[in-house]
Amino acid sequence: MTKIALFPGSFDPITNGHLHMIERAACLFDEVIVAVMSNMAKQPLFTLNERVNLIKAAVAAEQLTNVRVSAQVNELTVDFAHRVHAQFIIRGLRNAQDFDYENNIAQMNHHLAPDIDTVFLMARPTSAYIASSLVKDVARFHGNLDQLVPTCVATALTAKFNQTK
Amino acid sequence: MTKIALFPGSFDPITNGHLHMIERAACLFDEVIVAVMSNMAKQPLFTLNERVNLIKAAVAAEQLTNVRVSAQVNELTVDFAHRVHAQFIIRGLRNAQDFDYENNIAQMNHHLAPDIDTVFLMARPTSAYIASSLVKDVARFHGNLDQLVPTCVATALTAKFNQTK
Amino acid sequence: MTKIALFPGSFDPITNGHLHMIERAACLFDEVIVAVMSNMAKQPLFTLNERVNLIKAAVAAEQLTNVRVSAQVNELTVDFAHRVHAQFIIRGLRNAQDFDYENNIAQMNHHLAPDIDTVFLMARPTSAYIASSLVKDVARFHGNLDQLVPTCVATALTAKFNQTK
Amino acid sequence: MTKIALFPGSFDPITNGHLHMIERAACLFDEVIVAVMSNMAKQPLFTLNERVNLIKAAVAAEQLTNVRVSAQVNELTVDFAHRVHAQFIIRGLRNAQDFDYENNIAQMNHHLAPDIDTVFLMARPTSAYIASSLVKDVARFHGNLDQLVPTCVATALTAKFNQTK
Amino acid sequence: MTKIALFPGSFDPITNGHLHMIERAACLFDEVIVAVMSNMAKQPLFTLNERVNLIKAAVAAEQLTNVRVSAQVNELTVDFAHRVHAQFIIRGLRNAQDFDYENNIAQMNHHLAPDIDTVFLMARPTSAYIASSLVKDVARFHGNLDQLVPTCVATALTAKFNQTK
Amino acid sequence: MTKIALFPGSFDPITNGHLHMIERAACLFDEVIVAVMSNMAKQPLFTLNERVNLIKAAVAAEQLTNVRVSAQVNELTVDFAHRVHAQFIIRGLRNAQDFDYENNIAQMNHHLAPDIDTVFLMARPTSAYIASSLVKDVARFHGNLDQLVPTCVATALTAKFNQTK
Repeated sequence: MTKIALFPGSFDPITNGHLHMIERAACLFDEVIVAVMSNMAKQPLFTLNERVNLIKAAVAAEQLTNVRVSAQVNELTVDFAHRVHAQFIIRGLRNAQDFDYENNIAQMNHHLAPDIDTVFLMARPTSAYIASSLVKDVARFHGNLDQLVPTCVATALTAKFNQTK
Repeated sequence: MTKIALFPGSFDPITNGHLHMIERAACLFDEVIVAVMSNMAKQPLFTLNERVNLIKAAVAAEQLTNVRVSAQVNELTVDFAHRVHAQFIIRGLRNAQDFDYENNIAQMNHHLAPDIDTVFLMARPTSAYIASSLVKDVARFHGNLDQLVPTCVATALTAKFNQTK
Repeated sequence: MTKIALFPGSFDPITNGHLHMIERAACLFDEVIVAVMSNMAKQPLFTLNERVNLIKAAVAAEQLTNVRVSAQVNELTVDFAHRVHAQFIIRGLRNAQDFDYENNIAQMNHHLAPDIDTVFLMARPTSAYIASSLVKDVARFHGNLDQLVPTCVATALTAKFNQTK
Repeated sequence: MTKIALFPGSFDPITNGHLHMIERAACLFDEVIVAVMSNMAKQPLFTLNERVNLIKAAVAAEQLTNVRVSAQVNELTVDFAHRVHAQFIIRGLRNAQDFDYENNIAQMNHHLAPDIDTVFLMARPTSAYIASSLVKDVARFHGNLDQLVPTCVATALTAKFNQTK
Repeated sequence: MTKIALFPGSFDPITNGHLHMIERAACLFDEVIVAVMSNMAKQPLFTLNERVNLIKAAVAAEQLTNVRVSAQVNELTVDFAHRVHAQFIIRGLRNAQDFDYENNIAQMNHHLAPDIDTVFLMARPTSAYIASSLVKDVARFHGNLDQLVPTCVATALTAKFNQTK
Repeated sequence: MTKIALFPGSFDPITNGHLHMIERAACLFDEVIVAVMSNMAKQPLFTLNERVNLIKAAVAAEQLTNVRVSAQVNELTVDFAHRVHAQFIIRGLRNAQDFDYENNIAQMNHHLAPDIDTVFLMARPTSAYIASSLVKDVARFHGNLDQLVPTCVATALTAKFNQTK
């Protein structure tokens, strides 16, 4: 049986932390589908389309051939997973604070869809601190984005903040 | 001496997690007053009145005769407690992340009103993940609300999200 | 119905942190029974008998008339609670690290005895750091025990460590 | 490529919490090898051989055909993994307290063997509290072991504690 | 070499918790520069100018002669630190929940500026619960601000909330 | 005023994690005194003398000229600090789990000696997982100690475990 995993997130924008997770997930599963959620809680910096395209470019640059990228619009994660025949959801854990939040979501998803299991990878220490929100703060004040995000994202962030000046 | 406890919260909306807490609090205290706070930090889904009425309906369905429901408007929790002669505040703890947040509030309330003590119950594992915010996400995307909220709340959530479509 | 709570612990020895918890529990419940567990995991400094007697002396000095002290020997906490007709177990929480440990025990006790509920009080900041293990380290090296333990315990600790010199 | 995962632990004894993890791991990987570590830090209740045999019996009863059980003696977990061609280590997370401990071990293993990745599953809320240490306390005082451990383990625990009386 | 530390924060408004941290930092370093960040994530209650002036008044009242106060506008904290020749950033930790958040920021700052180190002091238990957000809630509902904030801040908070009534 | 800090620990043995902390502390303070505690809770692998000498060798190899190493025998940390005129205690924090433990000790030390303050540095992500206990496990089973401990410690660990075979 082909093992397919959904990697849901807001990816506003994708960082090297996310990218390393995707690479590791691509070794664990036969196919990984990155699901970019239309984030309703807060206004994203990048549009849904921009976020999808940045991930596609980053994934292509890494030559991850078993990774697909897709927008998740107005749909529960478990419904999306069912639709694409994913039996697993994959998420990263960066620290203990993440744990309780991710645990709640994993239990809710198990309640809604007992046939789907959630699997976790722990962030490597060298990228555990690279949160999208911190990266945007660095970019906003023209800090160095090397090693924090893929090249295409660094370019997009720089353009975005020059534009908003 | 009659022991009265205040159970403050935003209850937007009440979930089965809250309801189990109220049931357990009703065994511990002679009287429990559910205080629905007018939440100023973020725009609630349900109005203060709707939230109060949903709790009243849920509590009535469970035949909890020593539980009252009341709105807490523009008033400190400890002032409300003094006004209704509650000697205790009762709160639920779902996970370690809750702890530090709740501890700060409990210590602040103790500083403001040393005559009132805060008492905690830990959520049962089967309902610890049922946060109001997750329930609203489920409802927004038409997921199954069974076992997550009282029937009256499921009906109200469905109506709310059909209305906003 | 008379509300009775069991406060189980190893109390090796009782500290001012424990004593404040007992005082607060004595306001919440009609009767509090302090259950001194025969600690099997590690060799205690004080014998079971010594620990019981130190708590009795400390409780008497505070004139807590609705508090009893008892040894819990080779018996599950929930079985002890049933035997003394306690409907509640009361425990203190000092920090987030305590939470997960106490939560596991509370859930296990609920599994074994669904008719007994566990109730938590958070340590006041001024006594949250007073752990029995730290107090013994202070006593071992002749540090000042004022404000850390009841007078009778300070005397007992000093005697114990002069004796072992 | 066949995906093989090592599930290391002391399993003193295996609980239903462990067994549910093994079942879920058996869905995620082509083959799961349960590695029973000779625990050097503390004296185990069951011998290495007893622990291996109890897991074998429990796994057979669940008809998990892609699960093997093996003793890990005087060997690093990553060396054992290399020897059996496991590309993954699988571990359960029960709560936030587990996180930092497991994270340290995962990072150390990654430092020692970058070709092996560690994957985590979160315990279901209904079994997250079932720690081996708590189960032994329940057995020691003749509590009810139903739903906590497989039948064969309940029998072994009862025999062990009748024998030590 | 003169040791200079930057103490960055939003200080909306400064509390006694912050003030105690500044006093302790002033003993540790030759010079402390309080950097008031123009908070972009949420609308502050006090303007940047008001926040700077309240800290200046509070620091003057405590006669802390080696403490300066400055606004940090549209600039990374590490760039500000470089500009004022600070070799250290100082931050307070109130609880375990703070830890992971502060750790991420410290690691990001180390990535951006390896020549600057971040140093932490733990809040005293008696002021660990005094968060600016809780203090504003107390002020909003006319609670007692004694012991929570410096006198000048209590006056400013009272004026602010009378004005907004 | 010369600023002197005590860095207490059991250092059984010193790791690269400790060594990086000492280097950073040596930049923060005029003088750092590493205090090797005679650990009473558990039998150490290395004698007090061995532990002191390994730190001395490691510190000399790094040419840290303002660092001294000393044994702390049967003495409270604050008494040792007073004796050597240290106004500060310095400790490392590796993760959120460390926080509550270290916080308790820091508050107890403040209670015993209000004139001494405790200062914390957060472990760099690349060495946060290097705990002495894990390093000993690696050495016991002949794993690669490169990057985990100073050369002199690797030699000592190898000798120790060949000897105990």
